[in-house]
Amino acid sequence: MNADLRAIDDADLNPVHIAALPSPFALWRGGSLTDGVIAYECWGELNADASNAILLFTGLSPTAHAASSPANREPGWWEQMIGPGRAIDTDRHFVVCVNSLGSCFGSSGPASINPRTGLAWRLDFPEIAVEDIARAGWEVMVSLGVTQLAAVVGPSLGGIVALAFVACLPGKARRLISISGTAAASAFAIALRSVQREAVMSDPDWHAGQYASPAQGPRAGMRIARKLGTITYRSAEEWRNRFARSGIGPQGMRAAQQVRGRVPEGFGPRFSVEGYLEAQAERFVRIFDANCYLYLSRAMDCFDLTSHGEPSEVLARAGLEAALVIGVESDFLFSIDEQAWIAGQLDLAGVPTTFAKMPCIEGHDAFLVDLPRFDAAIRPFLGG
Amino acid sequence: MNADLRAIDDADLNPVHIAALPSPFALWRGGSLTDGVIAYECWGELNADASNAILLFTGLSPTAHAASSPANREPGWWEQMIGPGRAIDTDRHFVVCVNSLGSCFGSSGPASINPRTGLAWRLDFPEIAVEDIARAGWEVMVSLGVTQLAAVVGPSLGGIVALAFVACLPGKARRLISISGTAAASAFAIALRSVQREAVMSDPDWHAGQYASPAQGPRAGMRIARKLGTITYRSAEEWRNRFARSGIGPQGMRAAQQVRGRVPEGFGPRFSVEGYLEAQAERFVRIFDANCYLYLSRAMDCFDLTSHGEPSEVLARAGLEAALVIGVESDFLFSIDEQAWIAGQLDLAGVPTTFAKMPCIEGHDAFLVDLPRFDAAIRPFLGG
Repeated sequence: MNADLRAIDDADLNPVHIAALPSPFALWRGGSLTDGVIAYECWGELNADASNAILLFTGLSPTAHAASSPANREPGWWEQMIGPGRAIDTDRHFVVCVNSLGSCFGSSGPASINPRTGLAWRLDFPEIAVEDIARAGWEVMVSLGVTQLAAVVGPSLGGIVALAFVACLPGKARRLISISGTAAASAFAIALRSVQREAVMSDPDWHAGQYASPAQGPRAGMRIARKLGTITYRSAEEWRNRFARSGIGPQGMRAAQQVRGRVPEGFGPRFSVEGYLEAQAERFVRIFDANCYLYLSRAMDCFDLTSHGEPSEVLARAGLEAALVIGVESDFLFSIDEQAWIAGQLDLAGVPTTFAKMPCIEGHDAFLVDLPRFDAAIRPFLGG
Repeated sequence: MNADLRAIDDADLNPVHIAALPSPFALWRGGSLTDGVIAYECWGELNADASNAILLFTGLSPTAHAASSPANREPGWWEQMIGPGRAIDTDRHFVVCVNSLGSCFGSSGPASINPRTGLAWRLDFPEIAVEDIARAGWEVMVSLGVTQLAAVVGPSLGGIVALAFVACLPGKARRLISISGTAAASAFAIALRSVQREAVMSDPDWHAGQYASPAQGPRAGMRIARKLGTITYRSAEEWRNRFARSGIGPQGMRAAQQVRGRVPEGFGPRFSVEGYLEAQAERFVRIFDANCYLYLSRAMDCFDLTSHGEPSEVLARAGLEAALVIGVESDFLFSIDEQAWIAGQLDLAGVPTTFAKMPCIEGHDAFLVDLPRFDAAIRPFLGG
């Protein structure tokens, strides 16, 4: 769902590897994709019997650059979690992170080129489902010679994708780590995302998806969508500690200068938290394609594990040896109750399940921030 | 903060009574207002010693029409709380509800006429503070011959105004009822409101506040702002019960038809909760002026009881005989902790205080919905 935007520097936007999807690639809600590709990065080495692979799905906005590598030395979005001796230990595991199908960092999506026309797909890109993101990620692994995952892992949207993976691809993952995802979007989350999408689509620069380039796209609408996203990824408690009612500081003032051209003096940023939102949004708007955002946002609304059957039966069929479900008590976007429900269904399915309730105050984004707690939960689960 | 929009039918928009403010009316953050007026409605009769008056402030969006009366028989926004034998008993009390200074339902504000130009004030209206709303409300009471209130009462923005009232006008109220307000906006609430304002100001139809009429104003931006407001006035739990993941129904489909002209098929409302938001927003956009919205929204950010002095000392000076603070556990906009803080400061001030923690699931809006609980708290406090 979130990008730790420190991790999406422009240098990261060029994908390290590209895998071709089978063509045509049949889509979950009908239709198919021709000549589709998925961008990915990898760390560590596949062992002789191809039994040590971990597939990592991302939140809504990151690239596949989860950690640094010789090919891209910039820190990744989960740098402290992936590497030699890290919780996701690349001395022992072959770790692959994919850019989601439908995203704009090297994978096929509304911003990529439609091979039939030579132009960007835009809204002619077929509707994608979370299940398609999962299945496309699996195709990357197949292309690398993997026949079964040691673990499928994902936070936020990635957590939803990981559930879709075990539902769609029984027997293909021995372990599941689901972090701050959901088995079915709540009305509350759908409502928030619908407002974000409306902000994008209400911006005249969206031009019904036909903007000429991201730089000429619906930046004002994307800025609003991202600010609202940022609010829902954190918590009131964190912000009370972090910003309270402090006035805008020097960094915020730079953001405020940019805003000042857009709004009258009295309505520009006055509080520190407003400057923070502005800085977060500017960065996002610069790199993320609006149509891709709409597609991925809607896909999150539509996933529902129950559409695969009785959830505990679906999970029993998945063939998991063990599962780890992590939730954050201060997450009000994907609530701890939703995580508890997933863990409960895994229990019902007879899967040995650890449910880690994190008391972090950073809300939905805690997996990017409160790393020691996540390390402590993930490391032993992966045998470290 | 919220309007129960059932209560803002067009018939209600014509104010029943208008009181002139002293002119010039000095404003809290500097400057003054000439020829200002406040719209109000009243119920019951002032007794011989003028000791039975209750002043009610509203949330951000309602009119002064809190209850029906012979002059306007439409139900008001707090119809079940105000009347003969009701919790706010008009057999015993003279009850006055004011339309906030800065609002657009008869009181002076950005949408009213600047007497110097004969045109709407728009952004030339001076900045107003919550303190000004409080003091303007008091001037209405003075004009009616009241020298001291039996109680000052307010929910949401009205709760903030009620606190400002006792801080600015010591000795003028014997009792305080503060409902789901705050002594100082949280960073989280400021962030949410800043995004709402940005949605309005990013709409090209806002024209830097110079739209010709509300019908030609920033409707798309106001729609987004109101949808986000509606999300924050309720709770995820209520919506899980109320909407879950149900598809859009017949009523929502009508809303969806309207949306369909604005967005491509796949991104229009699919879920029941989206249709609900659409219906709420359409109604609001039709009646509420965008510039007034911006002014009142910013005023809420800026109130801070500590700017009046050490809070417990400010409250001790207020001369209150008793206070009732009501908070809702599921309110994530004005959290229960913020209500507890107000009650704690009143305790410190030596004011006999009742703190009612409501277990309602309707969030910030519970005062409009879960009326039996609010009746049970308010009725005994007002001697009923």
